[in-house]
Amino acid sequence: MIIGVDAMGGDFAPKNEVLGAIKAFPRLKAGSRIALFGDKNQIEAIAKAEGFDVSNFDAIHTTEVIGMNDLPAKAFVQKPDSSISVGFTALAEGKINGFASAGNTGAMMAAAMYSVKVIDGIIRPCISTDLPLMNGKTALLLDVGFNSDCKPEMLYQYALLGSIYASEVMDINNPRVALLNIGEEEEKGDLLTKAAYELMKGTSDFNFVGNVEGHAILSGKVADVVVCDGFVGNVVLKLAEGFYRVALKQGIDNEYFNRFNYEIYGGTPALGVNAPVIIGHGASSPRAIMNMILQTEHVIKAELVKKVKEALNK
Amino acid sequence: MIIGVDAMGGDFAPKNEVLGAIKAFPRLKAGSRIALFGDKNQIEAIAKAEGFDVSNFDAIHTTEVIGMNDLPAKAFVQKPDSSISVGFTALAEGKINGFASAGNTGAMMAAAMYSVKVIDGIIRPCISTDLPLMNGKTALLLDVGFNSDCKPEMLYQYALLGSIYASEVMDINNPRVALLNIGEEEEKGDLLTKAAYELMKGTSDFNFVGNVEGHAILSGKVADVVVCDGFVGNVVLKLAEGFYRVALKQGIDNEYFNRFNYEIYGGTPALGVNAPVIIGHGASSPRAIMNMILQTEHVIKAELVKKVKEALNK
Repeated sequence: MIIGVDAMGGDFAPKNEVLGAIKAFPRLKAGSRIALFGDKNQIEAIAKAEGFDVSNFDAIHTTEVIGMNDLPAKAFVQKPDSSISVGFTALAEGKINGFASAGNTGAMMAAAMYSVKVIDGIIRPCISTDLPLMNGKTALLLDVGFNSDCKPEMLYQYALLGSIYASEVMDINNPRVALLNIGEEEEKGDLLTKAAYELMKGTSDFNFVGNVEGHAILSGKVADVVVCDGFVGNVVLKLAEGFYRVALKQGIDNEYFNRFNYEIYGGTPALGVNAPVIIGHGASSPRAIMNMILQTEHVIKAELVKKVKEALNK
Repeated sequence: MIIGVDAMGGDFAPKNEVLGAIKAFPRLKAGSRIALFGDKNQIEAIAKAEGFDVSNFDAIHTTEVIGMNDLPAKAFVQKPDSSISVGFTALAEGKINGFASAGNTGAMMAAAMYSVKVIDGIIRPCISTDLPLMNGKTALLLDVGFNSDCKPEMLYQYALLGSIYASEVMDINNPRVALLNIGEEEEKGDLLTKAAYELMKGTSDFNFVGNVEGHAILSGKVADVVVCDGFVGNVVLKLAEGFYRVALKQGIDNEYFNRFNYEIYGGTPALGVNAPVIIGHGASSPRAIMNMILQTEHVIKAELVKKVKEALNK
C-alpha cells in the first residue's frame, strides 16, 4: 500500500512532517510505502540533513501550500498544485491508498468531499478522536467539530460510522454506542438528542446502550463510542486538552492524564468519505506525524469504507 | 435577613442539611438567621444529638418531600406542603430573603418560576456555576443545564445576568464576558453562537470579549463569565467533575484540581428570578450545605435582583 502524507501541512512543516515520515519508515509493515506530497527540494534537504536516503519515499513535487487562513471551501480549487489538492487527487485516482495531513482541517474535509467524495447514503462526513479511558482502554468520540448543526439522522450515522471504526480499527468487539447527553434517562436532552435517541432505540445497526453524561465518558463503564454533534464534541475535545495542559503545567506526571497527549494518537480519522483520511494536529511533532502515518496504515488495512458500504446497504 | 434552607432536599437529607446549618450558624453575619423547612421532629432530633440548641433556627414544619423522581413541573402543585413548596411560598411572601436547597433542581426552578416568578423581561432563568481558574481566580459558567435549546436572545441575557453576578457577588471589576465556541474567530460556531455573537458585538450592557474555546476557559486569560446553552454547559460542568474525580482516583492531590470539589462552592445560583435562589449538589455533605447557606447569605446581601432590573430598564 502507499500512504500519502502531506509534507506541507502543520505549523512546523515540512520539517516535522519529513522527520515524522523518517521515524515511521522503519516501523512500516512489509509492502507499505510513504508518498510525500510537497516541495521536493525542501523534503530532500531535510532528509539529507538526517542522513536518510530519500529514495525510500515517493516524493510528489507540489508548488503551492494551503495555509490555516485559506478558505476551506475554495482552497482545493484555488490552489490546484497544493500538497492537499494533489494528494487528494492522487487518492481519488487510486494512486495512493490513504492520505494524512496536519494541515487545514476544513480544507482537507472539503478536498475529501470534492475528490474522493462522501460515501453514498452518508449525509455528512465527520471527524472523530480517541478518548482515553480510566480502564486503560480507548473510546471513540465523534463528531468533534466538522458539523456544528446536526440533524438526528446525522447523529445516527455517526453512531454507525463510529461503531464500525471501533470494531474494525480499534478491535473492540460489539462496541457499546452511547449518546452524549445531560441525563441518563431516555427523556433527557435537547431536541436533537431526544430525536436521535428515538432513532437509535432498538436499532440493530449498532449496539446502542443509551445516554452517557459528561462525567461518565472517561470511566469506560458506559460506552466505547460516544456520539454528539460537532459543537459539543469540539468543546469536549478541547476541554479535555485543557485539563491535560493543566496537568502538565501543574507538574502532574500521571499515566492516565499523559494519555491525553495527542502525539500518541497521531490524528483524527475523517469518517464517511470514500477513502482513508487522517487529520493530524496542527502543532504536530515528528512523533505525532509518525503516529499519524502508522495510524493511516492501520486504517487502510481495516478496509473501513467497504464495511461502511456493506452496513449502509444491509 | 432570613436565609431559607430546605432541610429535606438532597440525597442525605435531613441529616446533612441540619448538620450543615449547624456548621454555618457560627459563621453567619450579625442579623442573619437560618429558617429550616422540613420535618420538625427530625430536625430537632438531629440538632439534639449534636448538642445544638435548635431555637437558634426558625423551623417551619412541612409534611411532604419532593423527591428526585417527582415531575418538576407538577411537584409544586401536587405537593403543596413539601419543604420546597412551602419554602418558595415563604420566599414569594417576603418571609424569607433567599432560599437554598440541594433537592430536585427542576422542581426548584419550576417552583421559583411559579412563586417568585421570572424577572420581567427575562425570557428564561438559568443556572450557573463557579469555574476555578488557573490564575487562582474563579469564573462563572452559565447556563449549566436549565435550558438545553436556546435562542440567541437567551444567551445574550445569560451574558447580562452573569456579568452582573460576577460584578456584584464575585467582586470582579468589569467582568470579561465570552461566548463558549469552537473557534476564536467571529465567524466560527453553530447557528446559535453565530447569531448570539452578532447580538453581543458592540453591546454596552456588558464587557463582551468575543469567543473562548474549550481549552481556554480554565486559564482565566480570556473570560470571567463564560456563556453557552444549557446542553453544552451541562456537558462542560460534568466533564470537569469527571476530571476532578479522575484526579481523586489517581491519588493526585493538587491545589488546582481540588478546587473542582463542589463542596467548597456550596451551590449554583439560579439567575433571572425575583429572589435569591441557590441550588445545592444532590450529594451535598454538611460542609457543602454550610457553604450553600453562606453563599445564599452573600447573594442576598448583593441585591442582585434589583441590579438586574436596573440593567434591563436602562
